[in-house]
Amino acid sequence: MAKKIIIVGAVALGPKVASRLRRLDPDCEIIMIDRDSLISYGGCGIPYYIGGDIGEIEELYSTTAHHVRDPEFFRTVKGVEVITRVEAIGIDRRKKQLKVRHLDDGTESEMAYDKLVIGTGGTPFTPPIPGADLPGVYPVSNLHHAQAIKELISKGAVGNAVVIGAGAIGVEMAEALTDLWGVQTTLVEMAPHVLPVAIGPNIALIVEKELEKSGVDVKIGAQVTKIIGDAESGVTGVEVSGEVIECDLVIMAVGVRPNTGFAAEAGLAVGRGGSLIVDKNLRTTDPDIYAGGDCIEIRNLVSGEQLPMALGSLANRQGRIIATNIFGKNAQFDGTVGTFCIKVFGMGVATAGLTIHQAKAAGFDPVHSLVAQFDRAHFYPNSKFLFVQLIADRATRRVLGVEAVGEQIDSVKARVDAVVPLLHKGMNVDEVCTLEVGYAPPFSSAMDVINNAGNTLDNILDGRNIPMDWPEFSDLFEKGQITVVDLREAVEAQPFIDQYGAERWIHIPQPELRERCNELPKDKDLCLFCGTGARSFECQIILNQNGFTRVKNLQGGYAIIRVTDPDFIPQGG
Amino acid sequence: MAKKIIIVGAVALGPKVASRLRRLDPDCEIIMIDRDSLISYGGCGIPYYIGGDIGEIEELYSTTAHHVRDPEFFRTVKGVEVITRVEAIGIDRRKKQLKVRHLDDGTESEMAYDKLVIGTGGTPFTPPIPGADLPGVYPVSNLHHAQAIKELISKGAVGNAVVIGAGAIGVEMAEALTDLWGVQTTLVEMAPHVLPVAIGPNIALIVEKELEKSGVDVKIGAQVTKIIGDAESGVTGVEVSGEVIECDLVIMAVGVRPNTGFAAEAGLAVGRGGSLIVDKNLRTTDPDIYAGGDCIEIRNLVSGEQLPMALGSLANRQGRIIATNIFGKNAQFDGTVGTFCIKVFGMGVATAGLTIHQAKAAGFDPVHSLVAQFDRAHFYPNSKFLFVQLIADRATRRVLGVEAVGEQIDSVKARVDAVVPLLHKGMNVDEVCTLEVGYAPPFSSAMDVINNAGNTLDNILDGRNIPMDWPEFSDLFEKGQITVVDLREAVEAQPFIDQYGAERWIHIPQPELRERCNELPKDKDLCLFCGTGARSFECQIILNQNGFTRVKNLQGGYAIIRVTDPDFIPQGG
Repeated sequence: MAKKIIIVGAVALGPKVASRLRRLDPDCEIIMIDRDSLISYGGCGIPYYIGGDIGEIEELYSTTAHHVRDPEFFRTVKGVEVITRVEAIGIDRRKKQLKVRHLDDGTESEMAYDKLVIGTGGTPFTPPIPGADLPGVYPVSNLHHAQAIKELISKGAVGNAVVIGAGAIGVEMAEALTDLWGVQTTLVEMAPHVLPVAIGPNIALIVEKELEKSGVDVKIGAQVTKIIGDAESGVTGVEVSGEVIECDLVIMAVGVRPNTGFAAEAGLAVGRGGSLIVDKNLRTTDPDIYAGGDCIEIRNLVSGEQLPMALGSLANRQGRIIATNIFGKNAQFDGTVGTFCIKVFGMGVATAGLTIHQAKAAGFDPVHSLVAQFDRAHFYPNSKFLFVQLIADRATRRVLGVEAVGEQIDSVKARVDAVVPLLHKGMNVDEVCTLEVGYAPPFSSAMDVINNAGNTLDNILDGRNIPMDWPEFSDLFEKGQITVVDLREAVEAQPFIDQYGAERWIHIPQPELRERCNELPKDKDLCLFCGTGARSFECQIILNQNGFTRVKNLQGGYAIIRVTDPDFIPQGG
Repeated sequence: MAKKIIIVGAVALGPKVASRLRRLDPDCEIIMIDRDSLISYGGCGIPYYIGGDIGEIEELYSTTAHHVRDPEFFRTVKGVEVITRVEAIGIDRRKKQLKVRHLDDGTESEMAYDKLVIGTGGTPFTPPIPGADLPGVYPVSNLHHAQAIKELISKGAVGNAVVIGAGAIGVEMAEALTDLWGVQTTLVEMAPHVLPVAIGPNIALIVEKELEKSGVDVKIGAQVTKIIGDAESGVTGVEVSGEVIECDLVIMAVGVRPNTGFAAEAGLAVGRGGSLIVDKNLRTTDPDIYAGGDCIEIRNLVSGEQLPMALGSLANRQGRIIATNIFGKNAQFDGTVGTFCIKVFGMGVATAGLTIHQAKAAGFDPVHSLVAQFDRAHFYPNSKFLFVQLIADRATRRVLGVEAVGEQIDSVKARVDAVVPLLHKGMNVDEVCTLEVGYAPPFSSAMDVINNAGNTLDNILDGRNIPMDWPEFSDLFEKGQITVVDLREAVEAQPFIDQYGAERWIHIPQPELRERCNELPKDKDLCLFCGTGARSFECQIILNQNGFTRVKNLQGGYAIIRVTDPDFIPQGG
C-alpha cells in the first residue's frame, strides 16, 4: 500500500515538502492541511502589499506564471491533496494518527499517517500590555491581517500609527505606512537600538538615521506601558515610557510563538521557547515525525546555540530536505549563521553571524573593524559608500559576524553573502582578506570593501590599527577628552576648525604629517580624522613610528558621521 | 643597517607592497621603479575613460581623496621613494643587484637590494598579422594608449572601428566605442563565442545578443588575416575570414605577455607562457625575490593548472601578502578560482571556476544546470530575470564552475561571489542547494536562484531532470526531430502554434497535464516548454511517472529564448 504522508501547515515549508516529495515519489499519498483558508503565500511580502509595492494580495499566493496557489492548484499541478480550515489538535503517536478539528463545523476526526510533517509556523505574541486586545491593534502574520490593515489605511482612517517592536517586520511596516500612505508613524523598541537581534549599535545608528530622515519617529529603549482606547472607538493612543502617543492604528510586532502545543502534548521534545527540537535530518524525537520552518529550533553555527530562525528561505530549504529524507535518502540541515537582510527606505542592510553583544554572550572576546568604502571603483560613476563591520574573536581570529549597510542594496547583500559560506565552516580573518570576490570597476574596487574589512581587522588584531568608534569619539570629544587631528584638505577641515576651535580640532593635511608630526602634543589623547578612516589609520602608524603612544583613529571617518550624526558637521563641512 | 627593498613595477602590485610594507616597518628603505612616467593607476578603468564614464584621465591615478598618486605622493604620504622612466634589464642574484636602464638618457646602473619584488605586469601581444604595426592600430594597456585613442575619437576621426579579440578588454572597448561615441564597431573573435576564457556558449549567446542589440557587430569564429592601410594614412580596414571591414581604428586586444625577460635571463623559473613561477608565499625560485600580479602563474584551484590571471584585484591581494612575508611573517596565496565579472551594456556577467569546455579539458565529466529566475521575489517590483549556469562533475558531484548573467549587475555578481568561497575549498552540489544567502523580498526569492541552480543540478545528476539546452532545442526543432509540448496558458502558446503548427507545437496547459497526458505520443521525442524551465521539469516527471521515456525539457524556457534568439518568437508570442 502507498505510504501516507500528512503535512500540517501549508504556508512555506509544507508546500515545498509536498511538491518535492511528489516529484520524488509518484505513488505516496500526500495530504496537506492548514487551519487557514489561504495557503502557500509569501508572508514576507505582506509589508510590501500594505506599502503598495504589490498591488493585489493575490500576487502573494500566485506563482511566477500567475497561477493562484489554492487547493485546486495543488491537486492538479502538484498532485497533492490540500484540506483547509482544519487544525491539528493532537497526535496519537502509537496509533500514528493525527487528531484534527474542522474549523467550519467544529467536528473532530483522526487522520492516519505513515510520516507526519509539522510546519505550523508561529503565532504573533501579544505582550501582557493593557489594551493590547483593543480594536485597531494588529499583528502582521497572515493575509487576513494584511487585508484588514490595508483596508483601514486606504480608506484614510489612519493618520497616526505606532509600531511596537523594531525587528524586521516592525521596521518594514514602519516603512510601508510612511512611504506610501504618509501615515505619521512612531516605531517603538524596548532594546537600545533598532533591529536588536540582527545588528549591533554601530550599524543600527545608520538605520535609525535613515528611518528618521524618512519621517519615522524612532523611540529606542522605550517601554510600552499601555494601549489607550475603548472597545467601541478602538485604539486612540499608546503610552510609551510615560508619554502618550496619539494614534489610530497599532502594529504589534514583538515576535512570534511557535504553534507546537499539540506536538508538545504528544511528547515531542521542545526547547525553552516551545520550538520543536529536531536532528540534522529534521526529524523530531519521534522518528516518523519531521518538522521545519518557524516552529523548530536550529543550531546557530557560530554560537552553538539552538534557536528558532523564522525565515521563508530556511523553511524552503528545510522542506526540500525533509522530502528527500521521507523518500528514503539522507539529506541534512546543519544549521544557520543567521544570514539576514532588509531594505529600510533607501538603505540595504545585511548581516550574518553574531553581533558584538551576542558574541560576548556566547563567551567570545569580540574585536571589530568598521570600514567605509565605495561599493564600486571610486572613479566609476554611481559609486556609493558601503559600510562593513567585521567581528572576530581576539584570541583565535575566528570570524564571528559581519554587518553591512549602504544605498545600493544588492551590493550590500553581496558582501555579506560572500562571507556566509565560510562562516558556516568556521573561518578566520585572513580568509576574508583574500576572499576572491569578482572585480571590475562597475562592480567593486580592486581591493573590495569586504577584503578591506578583513585587512583592517587583521591590523586591529595585530595591534597596528587602534581605532575608535563614532559613539565613543562623540562622547570623548564632547567631554574635551580627545583632541582631533584632521588630515583632510584645508577646505574640508576649515568649517570644523571654525566650529570647534583650532585647539580641539588640529589640522595637518596627510601629505605634511611626516614632516610636521612634532607640532602635535605627545601628552594628549589624539584621535585622527579623515574621510573614511583609511588615511587616519595610515597616519596613526606614522605617529606611532614617531613615538606617539596616545593616538587612535576614527573608524569610518567623515563618511560615518554623515550617516549617523549629520548635526555634528558644521555648515559647509 | 636598514633593509633595502626594491620593487620593480609601480602599477597595482608594487604600490600595495610598498604601502603595506611601510606600515609594517618604519625603517626599511623602499624604492619602487617603473619604466613609465605614470604610475599607480587603475588600468581596468581605461575602457570607462575612453567611453566617457570617467571624465578626466587623472581620476585613474588619483586616490579617493583626490590626491594624484605620483612620486611626490608616494614620498610624502607613503614614505616610499619612486623612480620613474627606469627599466629593469637584469639581476645579478649573487651580488643581489638589479641592473636598470634610465630611459631618458639611456644610461645603465646597478641598484643593490636585500629583497626584490617583481610586479612588471604584461605587454599586449601583437599577433603576426600583416599590418599589425600600422598607425591607427592600438593596444589598450596603459594610459598613453588610452589618451591617444580618446583623442582620436573625440576629434571625430573615427567612424568605424574593429576590435580584435572578445576577451574582457575587447568587449569593454567595443562597448566604450559604441556607447558614447556611436562608432560603428565590429568585434572579432577567433573562438566560437565571446569571452571564451570566462564563460561557455550558453551564457555567451546572451552576451552576444546584448552586444548586437546595442549596435556592435559581433563576428565569432572569425580569423583576422590582414590589417589594411599604409604608413601614411594609417589603417583603412581589416580582412576578416576573407571579408574586408572598413575602419579608421583597430583595437588589438588578443592578450598580454608577461614582462619577465630580465628575470628569466637571471635564472628565475618561468612557466610555459613565460610567467614567473612562485610558491604559496609568492616567492620566486630565488628566496630573496618575490613576484606577483600579471607576471606570475597562479594555481587554478579547480583544475589544478598553473596559469596567469591578470586582475588588479588579485595583484592587490598578492601585494599585501608579499609585504607581510618580507616583513618576516607568513602569509599565503593559495590560488584562484578565476572569479571574473564584466558589464556588457545593460547586462552584468559573472563567473568562477571552469567552463564546460575547460572542465572537459581538465579531465572532468561536467554536467550543468541552467536556471532562469527572478533576481528578487517574483511579486516584488523591479524583479528581473537572472540566468545561472552551474557545472559539476558527474561522478563526484563536485562543483566545477558557475556562470551568471542578468540585467541587475550587482545581483548577478552576488550569486557568483556566494559560491566562490566554497569553490576555493572544494564543494559539492548539495552545498549550493543549502547556501544560506540572505533573503527578503526586495533582494531575492525565498528559494534563491543560486539555490535553485543547485537543486536543478542535483535533480539532473540524479537523472530526474533530463534537460535540453537552447542550441540543441533549436537545432532539433528545425530538423523536425522533436515535438514541443507547451505547458503555458493558451494565450501564450497560440502564436507559437500559429507559427509552427499544432503538430510540432502541442499545447497542454500545466494544470491539465496529469489528466491529459495520454493525448501525447509515446513514440516521439518530446521537449517540454514553459516560461523558465521550472514547470517543464515538473511535467517531465509527471510524464515519466506515466510511462513516457522520450521526454526532455528546455532549460530556461521562454526566458532564455527571449535573450538569445528573439527571432524564434512569433509576433505576439
